[in-house]
Amino acid sequence: MLKLTILYGHPSDPQAFERYYAETHMPLVAKIPGGHRFEQARVLSTPDGSRPPYYRIFELWSDSQEQMQACLGSAEGQAAVADLPHFATGGVTLFISEVQ
Amino acid sequence: MLKLTILYGHPSDPQAFERYYAETHMPLVAKIPGGHRFEQARVLSTPDGSRPPYYRIFELWSDSQEQMQACLGSAEGQAAVADLPHFATGGVTLFISEVQ
Repeated sequence: MLKLTILYGHPSDPQAFERYYAETHMPLVAKIPGGHRFEQARVLSTPDGSRPPYYRIFELWSDSQEQMQACLGSAEGQAAVADLPHFATGGVTLFISEVQ
Repeated sequence: MLKLTILYGHPSDPQAFERYYAETHMPLVAKIPGGHRFEQARVLSTPDGSRPPYYRIFELWSDSQEQMQACLGSAEGQAAVADLPHFATGGVTLFISEVQ
């Protein structure tokens, strides 16, 4: 199983980020074909009380390399990725990992 | 639901990291009480082909803030966290997020 992780840096305007994320970005993600399981989370804290290095984390699981490529390569997947610069003012970090 | 994410930077010696991680660290994690669900994954790639910024990702889910605190505050949780510097030569990034 593969997992796509997207880490969002702290945005310049969290309220504007949240509005765009909920109203525009996540509806694009929901259109991605293939019935992938995904999870979104808002970063709250760190165990040592320091400022969290990221603002949000989004993850999407896929059964295989082929499914992940089909997901990211689909018109809907590309539209969701192309949408990131429209609101992710704190930057994004993306990577794919193999779940063990 | 809360999620603890641990991002491992690239270790100086991946083979030594893997050995310690599998033989020493994960057995400590498995001792943490509370039956938390967790997932470990090895980072493979990035969508744009650049070098992944992290080497491994570990995540642990907890039903509530209280459960997460009980997990991290237990002797077994503290032992697992205290073990990180023994092998994570590429550094670790930890944060807790609220799953939505």
